[in-house]
Amino acid sequence: MNDHRPDIPTPAVRRLSLYLRELEGLSAQNTQTVSSSTLGDLLGLTDAQVRKDLAYFGQFGRPGVGYQVSEMIEKIRQILGTDKVSPALIVGLGNIGMALAMFEGFRPKGFDILALFDADPEKIGRVVNGLTIHSMDELAETVERKQIKLGIMAVPGSVAKDVAKELISVGIRGILNFAPASLDVPDDITVRSLDVAAEMEQLSFKVQWSD
Amino acid sequence: MNDHRPDIPTPAVRRLSLYLRELEGLSAQNTQTVSSSTLGDLLGLTDAQVRKDLAYFGQFGRPGVGYQVSEMIEKIRQILGTDKVSPALIVGLGNIGMALAMFEGFRPKGFDILALFDADPEKIGRVVNGLTIHSMDELAETVERKQIKLGIMAVPGSVAKDVAKELISVGIRGILNFAPASLDVPDDITVRSLDVAAEMEQLSFKVQWSD
Repeated sequence: MNDHRPDIPTPAVRRLSLYLRELEGLSAQNTQTVSSSTLGDLLGLTDAQVRKDLAYFGQFGRPGVGYQVSEMIEKIRQILGTDKVSPALIVGLGNIGMALAMFEGFRPKGFDILALFDADPEKIGRVVNGLTIHSMDELAETVERKQIKLGIMAVPGSVAKDVAKELISVGIRGILNFAPASLDVPDDITVRSLDVAAEMEQLSFKVQWSD
Repeated sequence: MNDHRPDIPTPAVRRLSLYLRELEGLSAQNTQTVSSSTLGDLLGLTDAQVRKDLAYFGQFGRPGVGYQVSEMIEKIRQILGTDKVSPALIVGLGNIGMALAMFEGFRPKGFDILALFDADPEKIGRVVNGLTIHSMDELAETVERKQIKLGIMAVPGSVAKDVAKELISVGIRGILNFAPASLDVPDDITVRSLDVAAEMEQLSFKVQWSD
């Protein structure tokens, strides 16, 4: 429950993740401060755009010094809600779902995969990365008990719409959708879709017609 | 080499993949024809938007009948360049790269993963899904011999910029980037980035501030 939603335009919120990624990279290299123009260069943005984006959440830059890297990382994580760890689940343990279950990149970014679900009896009961794959019958109880609000869907396109409805009905509020299907969800539910084949198609279009 | 690049705005090209996915779904259910309003409903678009998008590549709709599903699938694939199979490679065989190497969704969409590369001596020589992981030393020769123009990068963020440069230098024209880093590429190179953690951050932002 948060009373004060920051008033940040959606494209700027998108860029917060990009800033955060570059800042984390700088931090890993022990860089303490960074100028808006250096950040802009790293991301292909203008100096002015960077300063405008970062001004949405307070004044960080200091004349002649630049932005404090660690301070900005902390602040961006607070805004994104990744300063604390959010529980998440995965539905669909095919190739992509399995890789996501093994992916080591979630924890450091503030996400903890706590439960795996699949409809295939052959998969139920198997253990992946320390987690047992459960049947969809256990979804509602698990989501409530573990207070999970984020769901990752890596199911076939043919069942994606039904699985999304099921996730929403048990209390999932944000869905990362890897299924090749468009999801129609209520306004208070957020979906982000990653369709690997569709991205390849877009590359194919550009490459084929740019020769 | 194509002389007649279709004059389609970028957002409409993005939607071609979405139309194609829904049409493939309809085809799998043996649906022969579909109206623009049904397609629109499936995708959350207006009837008028669907008709406008599809008009970019000729007249398909027939009054009282709708669009021929198989004809549209064929035409969209031609425009996307996925009516023929395009060779592709993967660099970086961590969890995500491994899953992509095993992913069965590329071939039916017109992509054939022909080569795998990694810098880690422990991984070089291993066989994944029938393909041997090669060292980056073999990149240039392989790309030329197999006429590969599409590259999938699933490397750590810290080396992403360098790997992208290397791919471009040997002739890769389109890059699907899973690394958590922004890539700065020449105008004639196309990059599409999928950052799983960044997508989760965006969900987190929405869910945390909408309670």
